Amino acid sequence: MYWTRTLIPTTRETPAEAEIPSHQLMIRAGLIRQVSAGVYDWLPLGWRSLRKIFAIIRQEMNAIGAEEIHMPALLPAQLWKRTRRYFDYGPLLFRLADRKEAEMILGPTHEECVTELVQAYVRSHKQLPLTLYQIQSKFRDEARPRNGLLRVREFFMKDAYSFHTSLESLHETYQAMYGAYVRIFRRCGVPAIPVEAQSGPIGGDASHEFICPCDSGEDVIVRSEDGSYAANLEQAGRADGGGRTLADAPAAPPGELHKIHTPGTTSIEPVCRLLHVQPQQMIKTLVFTANAGESRQWVVACVRGDHEVNEAKLRKVVGNMELAEDQMARAAGFVIGFVGPHVVNRVQARLVIDPDALMVPVAVTGANEADWHVTNFNWKNNLSAARCGDAVVADIRNVTPEDRAPNGARLTFHKGIELGHVFKLGTKYSDVLGATYLDEKQQSRPMIMGCYGIGPGRIMVAALETRFDADGIRWPMGIAPFHVVITPIKYEGRVKDIADRLHTELQQRGVDVLVDDRDQRPGVKFKDADLIGIPLRIVIGEKGLSGGQVELKRREEKQATLVALENLADTVTNLIRANV
Amino acid sequence: MYWTRTLIPTTRETPAEAEIPSHQLMIRAGLIRQVSAGVYDWLPLGWRSLRKIFAIIRQEMNAIGAEEIHMPALLPAQLWKRTRRYFDYGPLLFRLADRKEAEMILGPTHEECVTELVQAYVRSHKQLPLTLYQIQSKFRDEARPRNGLLRVREFFMKDAYSFHTSLESLHETYQAMYGAYVRIFRRCGVPAIPVEAQSGPIGGDASHEFICPCDSGEDVIVRSEDGSYAANLEQAGRADGGGRTLADAPAAPPGELHKIHTPGTTSIEPVCRLLHVQPQQMIKTLVFTANAGESRQWVVACVRGDHEVNEAKLRKVVGNMELAEDQMARAAGFVIGFVGPHVVNRVQARLVIDPDALMVPVAVTGANEADWHVTNFNWKNNLSAARCGDAVVADIRNVTPEDRAPNGARLTFHKGIELGHVFKLGTKYSDVLGATYLDEKQQSRPMIMGCYGIGPGRIMVAALETRFDADGIRWPMGIAPFHVVITPIKYEGRVKDIADRLHTELQQRGVDVLVDDRDQRPGVKFKDADLIGIPLRIVIGEKGLSGGQVELKRREEKQATLVALENLADTVTNLIRANV
Repeated sequence: MYWTRTLIPTTRETPAEAEIPSHQLMIRAGLIRQVSAGVYDWLPLGWRSLRKIFAIIRQEMNAIGAEEIHMPALLPAQLWKRTRRYFDYGPLLFRLADRKEAEMILGPTHEECVTELVQAYVRSHKQLPLTLYQIQSKFRDEARPRNGLLRVREFFMKDAYSFHTSLESLHETYQAMYGAYVRIFRRCGVPAIPVEAQSGPIGGDASHEFICPCDSGEDVIVRSEDGSYAANLEQAGRADGGGRTLADAPAAPPGELHKIHTPGTTSIEPVCRLLHVQPQQMIKTLVFTANAGESRQWVVACVRGDHEVNEAKLRKVVGNMELAEDQMARAAGFVIGFVGPHVVNRVQARLVIDPDALMVPVAVTGANEADWHVTNFNWKNNLSAARCGDAVVADIRNVTPEDRAPNGARLTFHKGIELGHVFKLGTKYSDVLGATYLDEKQQSRPMIMGCYGIGPGRIMVAALETRFDADGIRWPMGIAPFHVVITPIKYEGRVKDIADRLHTELQQRGVDVLVDDRDQRPGVKFKDADLIGIPLRIVIGEKGLSGGQVELKRREEKQATLVALENLADTVTNLIRANV
Repeated sequence: MYWTRTLIPTTRETPAEAEIPSHQLMIRAGLIRQVSAGVYDWLPLGWRSLRKIFAIIRQEMNAIGAEEIHMPALLPAQLWKRTRRYFDYGPLLFRLADRKEAEMILGPTHEECVTELVQAYVRSHKQLPLTLYQIQSKFRDEARPRNGLLRVREFFMKDAYSFHTSLESLHETYQAMYGAYVRIFRRCGVPAIPVEAQSGPIGGDASHEFICPCDSGEDVIVRSEDGSYAANLEQAGRADGGGRTLADAPAAPPGELHKIHTPGTTSIEPVCRLLHVQPQQMIKTLVFTANAGESRQWVVACVRGDHEVNEAKLRKVVGNMELAEDQMARAAGFVIGFVGPHVVNRVQARLVIDPDALMVPVAVTGANEADWHVTNFNWKNNLSAARCGDAVVADIRNVTPEDRAPNGARLTFHKGIELGHVFKLGTKYSDVLGATYLDEKQQSRPMIMGCYGIGPGRIMVAALETRFDADGIRWPMGIAPFHVVITPIKYEGRVKDIADRLHTELQQRGVDVLVDDRDQRPGVKFKDADLIGIPLRIVIGEKGLSGGQVELKRREEKQATLVALENLADTVTNLIRANV
């Protein structure tokens, strides 16, 4: 390809709207262009790289026997109502009506669609296992699209779905998929750490995320120092998280709760300052609403003042729930901002206590009265036993650097980008959508499912975030838009002839070549070559040619090497082969 | 690939909802599955074939220097309002609002989006010409989705857009694109006739459709018997279409219009029966509304009773217009169903007369009164000259088999499927969206554009429609999901070993192989192999193997040939090479 015949709109300016390096580089190197918030054009360079990522994914998916299909973006809302995700997804779901007023959605993922598809065709255990995948555009109406391709509203996803007759068969495909993911990320040149993630209905070792460690990431992962344990923050467990009940709370001398006026201080830090106490001496109390069948149930969750409630962990205890809506909670008697655990003495609610909160002997907490806190709170003294029959002590908080991994090792914390997710779904979708098969004994059984996602755009973000330098992008060879950029000092005469000949010769060898045939000063061309980050650069000038030589430079090196023209194609081909 | 590991849901039953052969075959052979009206899943076999079509298109696009990009489906409505297509597209456009109530659309095509993209980056004539293309999902809310992939609501399109500084440059790319299209359709194994189509703003030879002749097609094309002329019905001209004015109307003896009671007969045929006249003696009068700037203008179009008004031709005379809405036309004084040309004597309207209608000396036509017609109508006697100052005589009807081509040759009519379209757009979009460049003299000029579409799904429809037989599909080699199906008589023992070995060996040679490893009777496997239409079938049985032979059969042949095992891979590879 010749530079003047394609569109590579490089720019020296750092775009104001781009905060993280990959976003800045994608715009500066002309990989993408924003159409509206979180919706992007893929320009030629970006698209070439993304297509290479697709190709690697396809090869690895096909190699493990997954078969490619393509499902539509436009889905009937009715299908999503059957699994209730039409409601659960909330405003994240793009909704529309067609000309006949039929409700449609734009698919943010395709579990329903693929389950219905398989349900329609698979009758017998002989047709299973089956793994289907697609690389297709997804739509999610994110509240705050940001960070370039990290949080977008229209994006490509590789989503795979597997169908099984047994947990063993699911596990086999899960492991094959896990292996394919490891190979995909390696071939794309991005580091990816598999971490335990939300386990869902199957329980146990049933879900892993692949995280690229990187400061711009929005995810937090937790690893044990000995490297034997890794999980996302949502999932990360701790050594001393379990096994206690309300009866294990420390005793304290009986005494009245002492009310203190704390006007307008609804969060931990200002209360600590005002009362000269430490967060470790406080109990933080949050109110949630859980869906208990048709009716709503209040949940009061207590953690120590220096800890954060982990909603995923809390969900494991109380089922599906969300932070209570302020106004409704107030109407029910929760003085939001000043709630203390003893609110359960007068409002019917389920109490869930983190073990560390339980072990605070006398605590400062909300007084259940606006602008007041109490000191001297003790679980045994101040809770009405009659109202705490169903109180639970459970790990419901994020781990902190003071915690130990379940195996006792120290924990380290890292930011990262989630690149992919493998998940044992179980029969959640097949139960609701009637995806059953007949087993050997002609018994009807629900199919057991797994689902497996990769964000190809996020792979690109991760490749950029982990490899750029002050001059621009440094593409991994495997996903570089071009392997080689040929930079003629001046594209004319003998230099032009050689550039054209090399372009043809390398292309015939399967090398992706870009010739910078622009009428620009060499300095501009060099700067652009660095910015767009092509792994190999060949500089052709009159001076070198007179000695039968051209300059070959790797993007990460400062110094070029002189290579004899007759050896160039071999040298380049070998360098590429060694790096993909 | 092994049959039991993929999903090929064949069925013997002809689906009730499918009217045309390709639709029936696509469902019976398990290529697609309907998700909702006009929205389909691509199942493994169909998707494999479609991806081969994509690959051929990409190769030919890249070969002429077009560069691939990818634009989003989710587009801001605002952009489409600027070109007014937001309004012009009407209910065909899927519209939605995001969580911030911003209006969005799902792109039915991408002229606006690509023009804005190029506008943002191209400043200088040095950056032009530039051709960008994508293969991407489009959305159109068709009133009546039907005929499988022929009229759908979500579908793939290859759309290319070129940008130029001169008409010569546009013409060059147009010709290159035209050549690429010819090669694409040939490589996909579908016959495609380029025909003149609606010429748009550039005029002249500025638009061609590629039509696959086929009875299931929804388009009509007109060809001259000598093969030198071809056009779609919309565009097809005739030898004697022009050069007349109202003054050329034949004279007739003066006489009153004679009113005849024709209750309830609003169309030509029953009037002819009732009055014992021929359609050639009648004048058919239709009422349209044209958009003349802000205001509406009535247009009265007259053709002979045996002819059909051609709206595209009429549009060339009066500009953008549509058939008048009944109620509004009645309110303005048009007695719809009984309108005669002399209505212009009392209602302000623009009169457009087809030359053949003009040459009827005394005609039967509507009386401009409900349930009445008139006889004895003559253009000179019965039109008020004062109201006919802007009357135009012009070719505004479809050609018929009685017409001659512009070159005088006889015409033949064929149904067909539109597969692609090349179009010289001119500056329509660049003017509105400000896509300008600086020429050599630093003058700002609008870019001249072309656009070029292909429907990959329609290529598949055309391949099926033109090649099926009673047993099923007959894929062209170039787009067949698999080149070869290996059918073991019984997949076990030595037969299994040979089948597996051949599968591996052929795959290593780049052959796409499907092994029918199902535990099914040979008859079922043979029937399915014919139905899914794989070009080559290898049957492996104990009997043949004892002589070191297997059966090789081409899908279109009745008889198989015995081939020695050691020659098989070469024979197969040669057959494939000879047919792609």
